[in-house]
Amino acid sequence: MNTRERNKPNAFYAQSGGVTAVLNASACGVIETARKYRHSMGTVYAGRNGILGALTEDLIDTSQESARAIARLQYTPGGAFGSCRYQLPDLEANPAPYERMIEVFSAHNIGYFFYNGGGDSQDTAWKVSQMGARLRYPIVCVGIPKTVDNDLPLTDNCPGFGSAAKYVAVSIREASFDVASMAKTSTKVFVFEVMGRHTGWITAACGLAGDREGDPPHILLFPEIPFAQDKFLARVRQCVDRYEYCTIAVAEGLRHPNGTFVADSGVKDAFGHTQLGGVGPIIANLVQQKLGYRYHWAVADYLQRAARHIASQTDVEQAYRLGEAAVKLALEGHNAVMPTIERVANRPYKWRIGVAALQEIANKEKMLPRDFISEDGFGITTSCRAYLQPLIQGEAYPPYKKGLPDYVRLKNVAVPKKLATDFAV
Amino acid sequence: MNTRERNKPNAFYAQSGGVTAVLNASACGVIETARKYRHSMGTVYAGRNGILGALTEDLIDTSQESARAIARLQYTPGGAFGSCRYQLPDLEANPAPYERMIEVFSAHNIGYFFYNGGGDSQDTAWKVSQMGARLRYPIVCVGIPKTVDNDLPLTDNCPGFGSAAKYVAVSIREASFDVASMAKTSTKVFVFEVMGRHTGWITAACGLAGDREGDPPHILLFPEIPFAQDKFLARVRQCVDRYEYCTIAVAEGLRHPNGTFVADSGVKDAFGHTQLGGVGPIIANLVQQKLGYRYHWAVADYLQRAARHIASQTDVEQAYRLGEAAVKLALEGHNAVMPTIERVANRPYKWRIGVAALQEIANKEKMLPRDFISEDGFGITTSCRAYLQPLIQGEAYPPYKKGLPDYVRLKNVAVPKKLATDFAV
Repeated sequence: MNTRERNKPNAFYAQSGGVTAVLNASACGVIETARKYRHSMGTVYAGRNGILGALTEDLIDTSQESARAIARLQYTPGGAFGSCRYQLPDLEANPAPYERMIEVFSAHNIGYFFYNGGGDSQDTAWKVSQMGARLRYPIVCVGIPKTVDNDLPLTDNCPGFGSAAKYVAVSIREASFDVASMAKTSTKVFVFEVMGRHTGWITAACGLAGDREGDPPHILLFPEIPFAQDKFLARVRQCVDRYEYCTIAVAEGLRHPNGTFVADSGVKDAFGHTQLGGVGPIIANLVQQKLGYRYHWAVADYLQRAARHIASQTDVEQAYRLGEAAVKLALEGHNAVMPTIERVANRPYKWRIGVAALQEIANKEKMLPRDFISEDGFGITTSCRAYLQPLIQGEAYPPYKKGLPDYVRLKNVAVPKKLATDFAV
Repeated sequence: MNTRERNKPNAFYAQSGGVTAVLNASACGVIETARKYRHSMGTVYAGRNGILGALTEDLIDTSQESARAIARLQYTPGGAFGSCRYQLPDLEANPAPYERMIEVFSAHNIGYFFYNGGGDSQDTAWKVSQMGARLRYPIVCVGIPKTVDNDLPLTDNCPGFGSAAKYVAVSIREASFDVASMAKTSTKVFVFEVMGRHTGWITAACGLAGDREGDPPHILLFPEIPFAQDKFLARVRQCVDRYEYCTIAVAEGLRHPNGTFVADSGVKDAFGHTQLGGVGPIIANLVQQKLGYRYHWAVADYLQRAARHIASQTDVEQAYRLGEAAVKLALEGHNAVMPTIERVANRPYKWRIGVAALQEIANKEKMLPRDFISEDGFGITTSCRAYLQPLIQGEAYPPYKKGLPDYVRLKNVAVPKKLATDFAV
């Protein structure tokens, strides 16, 4: 490696955890910005399947992709390079994976590490920065926020959330028009299950579908509020009496007063988190058994985090800008940081890029504040509405071909391996 | 009633059965066209909650709605006047409801009967026409087709279907991008449950999301093909081996070889939860139990038939044009008929309005032809694709306000009652 090459290190970029409608917009921001600053940053190598790509030396050469293909990432959902759910061990207990990463990065002259993910991922990014320092391998680590759950601290909101929020608000508004039409002789109760893990941000977004008293959705069931069955059933009956129907949004992470999940499926993911899903039919069934109303239920599951066709313009812009900001921060030498979104004003909505230390972000969850939830626990407050409103603003429609969104699939050409050793993951 | 009034009878319009994203576009076509021909057609009275409005003399005066409000129906999902699930008794066994309707129609000088619905509804429209003739009450009955299930005979396709088809194809494409990103370390199988009652039209539409061999969705489970569990599981394993993941669309009406519905099986899931209906989670659980793959599942339910935000332009146009055609047919004196869609050409797609006799349509279901299903029973054929493609073409986006579709709620002012008698329904 000659001096010029060493002065122009390559970058590693990886996607981690559950993907979103705008995760690739951040990737687009990273790659396009890196290309703009090609005099100081080499090639962006993407990890195939997130951090696994770094561990197994399975790197994707993004320079093989045309400018047009990279631009199309802005409107393609999912994780274009593959994501992963893989929890790195504790750095002190088992430094081997971190050492391996540094070995791979060294072999490919990687001096920048961009990790695009949620709380667990920012923890990983922080650990990589620590290992770089310990092994005296100069690597600049910058996290890029991402999660539909909107539960990262220190950033006003998280890319991916605004589009999921828009999708669920649109969906429950539409389904409510349907139920209202059918209620006289058929379905009276509609239950819509949404994601959000332990937090009620996505559930709260459903509340945006109603503007005035009596508008659907009539009941929101937040994970932050223990499920009070009798109070809930009384409210359902009241809605049906008053409005002839009742639409309900329920968070996958709804808990009984004793703390257990209403829908514990018994499956845990790689991080030991309980896999949730199925609370919608449980709540619908409860209503039918106790009140006898006809019901329907829907579980959007991945649809809500992949719905790029109805993405929020605000969200797409922020995702891109955070990717761009990450590269600029790295080039300015900021290490172990994550660009954030800082809200400047609500009306009109203004925001700017801020910066937070990775160490402050890792493994913390931002719950829905109690004053965002109405006193009775079944709705959102004016301040919650003011917070959420700008995040779903604008429609960033993808282009269509033959009646369907024309999303890109990249070539994802592998970088030739340079190490003789394998690493078992 | 003077002669001029008698020469300009009013019209009754009602919405029946499950509503759709474009049912109100047909209503818009009826009302706007009737207003255009106001010299020969009086006011359009809408039945509140479908045919119930006729039986209970609960009529809505659509002349109270502004031209702008009526125009907004074109992009508002659901049934603006309320729909109903109400099966009229057999005409011979119990003529009372039909006699009552004629009494109501007579009181309000109604000479045109427009009934916007599926197979059951066309049966009702036909019976009303029979009763009019028997009681020597001159009433012109015209059905307007509507059903997301696409199962009406004699029309090339049904309004509502194209938009549901577009929604499910977009959704499974997007979810498949998500699953593909996660498959390496997490979800390998995604199951998407769709509607369609006993027919596989909506399931087939999911197949449009894949263009080439290996594209998702990898497996479609049609109600027309008895569920072959072992063959299905072998195919899932093959897909995961070959593509690293497998996405599956399953029809709510999937049946076991013995004819029973899979969703009726009454099984408990792997974790002891009582299965709450929904063939999607049943199939997902089966895959997990037999093959051990991590899975996710989604049930779109009403979302797929209310998703006006992603409606097909073709569908919206056809729905409107059929409403318009119904009024024109009525004014031309055609009785006991339904306008249909006749396909003229596939590429470029051309269609025209046809006419069918109500008697030929009532209570018949059009199943997916066997030659639209691939030989192995898990996919669609080229001819199926050619049939479906034009129906999802074009994006008819609604206007947005504060980040959400700006759908209309009508005033729905009641027409003063003229009869002293009630009718129990």
